[in-house]
Amino acid sequence: MRIKTDDGIKDMRAVWREGNIVKMIDQRYLPNELIIFSAKNADDIHMAIKEMVVRGAPCIGVTAAYGMAQAFEKRVDTSEAASKIKSARPTAYDLFYAVDHMQEQVKQGKDPSEAADDYALSVINKCRAIGENGAKMIEDGYNILTHCNAGALATVDHGTALAPMRVGKEQEKNIFVYVDETRPRLQGAKLTAWELYNEDIRHTVIADNAAGHYIQRGHIDMVIVGTDRIAANGDIANKIGTYEKAVVAKENGVPFYVAAPVTTFDPNTESGMDIPIEERDPKEVTIMDGVRVVSPGSNANNPAFDVTPSRYITGYITEKGIYTPDDLEDMFD
Amino acid sequence: MRIKTDDGIKDMRAVWREGNIVKMIDQRYLPNELIIFSAKNADDIHMAIKEMVVRGAPCIGVTAAYGMAQAFEKRVDTSEAASKIKSARPTAYDLFYAVDHMQEQVKQGKDPSEAADDYALSVINKCRAIGENGAKMIEDGYNILTHCNAGALATVDHGTALAPMRVGKEQEKNIFVYVDETRPRLQGAKLTAWELYNEDIRHTVIADNAAGHYIQRGHIDMVIVGTDRIAANGDIANKIGTYEKAVVAKENGVPFYVAAPVTTFDPNTESGMDIPIEERDPKEVTIMDGVRVVSPGSNANNPAFDVTPSRYITGYITEKGIYTPDDLEDMFD
Repeated sequence: MRIKTDDGIKDMRAVWREGNIVKMIDQRYLPNELIIFSAKNADDIHMAIKEMVVRGAPCIGVTAAYGMAQAFEKRVDTSEAASKIKSARPTAYDLFYAVDHMQEQVKQGKDPSEAADDYALSVINKCRAIGENGAKMIEDGYNILTHCNAGALATVDHGTALAPMRVGKEQEKNIFVYVDETRPRLQGAKLTAWELYNEDIRHTVIADNAAGHYIQRGHIDMVIVGTDRIAANGDIANKIGTYEKAVVAKENGVPFYVAAPVTTFDPNTESGMDIPIEERDPKEVTIMDGVRVVSPGSNANNPAFDVTPSRYITGYITEKGIYTPDDLEDMFD
Repeated sequence: MRIKTDDGIKDMRAVWREGNIVKMIDQRYLPNELIIFSAKNADDIHMAIKEMVVRGAPCIGVTAAYGMAQAFEKRVDTSEAASKIKSARPTAYDLFYAVDHMQEQVKQGKDPSEAADDYALSVINKCRAIGENGAKMIEDGYNILTHCNAGALATVDHGTALAPMRVGKEQEKNIFVYVDETRPRLQGAKLTAWELYNEDIRHTVIADNAAGHYIQRGHIDMVIVGTDRIAANGDIANKIGTYEKAVVAKENGVPFYVAAPVTTFDPNTESGMDIPIEERDPKEVTIMDGVRVVSPGSNANNPAFDVTPSRYITGYITEKGIYTPDDLEDMFD
């Protein structure tokens, strides 16, 4: 991804390896500071995923794969490392997939760091392909709504939901993005806005509450979001609030697209209602950037994800093409 | 309303008169500090409404009425005072109604301060009646969602949306309230949560994004919101985000009630789409409690209200009873 720095424009990834250290942009400090976090063992990887140094399902997957490569190379107890890493967060399927994939690859005799690099490159290439497929749906002059951050920061590079916007920009399409700020952690206001600013893609941030208003008034031509897990029936889990946007989009006849690599599909989860919803610390709601925003006598609930049933989804933009809920199974042909 | 203070429980109103000074709880400092703002002339009243020292349509109306009484008593140019006060905010019908009503009353020979006191008392009594009518819809054990603050702070006393909860509590019904934090200004997290805490009504604050999740999962039995204006066709304008909640409630078969005095109806506004939507300072989105939360290179849009078409509304809880969109006109019988 393109990042404007004091030393000019840099091209960076959200997570990478240097020797046996896993390095990543520490997303807790964005957009104010560009700080690099170094993970030296499975505990560091666990912490980085749990505390959201890295976030976004594909990026979590790659971080986990690099973490497993690190564990294999260091000859520590890799099944312990696997459990530790898998326990960092409960919702994103990529996390479990990446750890299992690494164990499988090594069992088959593959070099761990090569396997991790291949996995990362495959994620990056898939995101690029998602961008190219998704850009076909974006017409010149489109206004696009997105929720949370399904950008390069969430996927190592390019993004899922943001990849079609990046490609659309390359194709010189005139696009404008409405960015839900995405409470409680404000990934839209802090991360998606930052990525779009760095890419010179025109955009504005809105309170999550305002998305419905803009959809109702015809200001939004399409919605594109990422997802953390797609169930076998096509239901998706994504950042809390996605469900509301999908319902309002359908009510107003606005297309609602989910951008994700095929690996986000979890054939073992029958329905969205079977996906566990992570309940995070209420402090993410009550305290914002160190300031208490909820009345002192009151507490908060903080579900991190919600489930959007497939009937609200126009299409799944994948690296293999775009599928509707009705032809989802063709993806595995 | 009941307020827990260091000196015990006090019973206060959101706005009142002391001699020729209009006093009000300065809602910009809640829930952290209980500070009283004193308005001495129409400029102060204009500022108090514009800067949201007071907010909420009925409370703005009473503040405007007190402000007009003050202007009449001080023998200043009352048509200038009327214009000044009316220009403070564009959406709430009560503001214009209260100013016109005061001018009409005085023209008919009524004492200005008596007219303002009568107006305030009438608002308070209506809210109490709204509470009694609305409480009939609340069953023991109900979980209720509310958005923004349509409490005593918004209506001088009792509230509109919160009045049925106060009466339900008096009737010893076991109720639980999900409070949307209500970005960008967080009136739910700061004001509604504070009122419910002071009334010992059980509640939790949620990110606005989470409301849909709780509605979908069957955790919400009913939604009650206030409104700033009801158009002749039953559409309402209310705090940004109300529309999304209404659409999701209807999609899930959850009753959606609007609580408001009959004066909130504006027969001269044909449809909700004719209600002007105030666009407020983007800083309300980009800066929260003094902290910049949006990426520095990005800007924000900040519509303060949205319109919920009448087809999403189960009933209007008024001081005269509860009406459906189909029998709205009976309200004027």
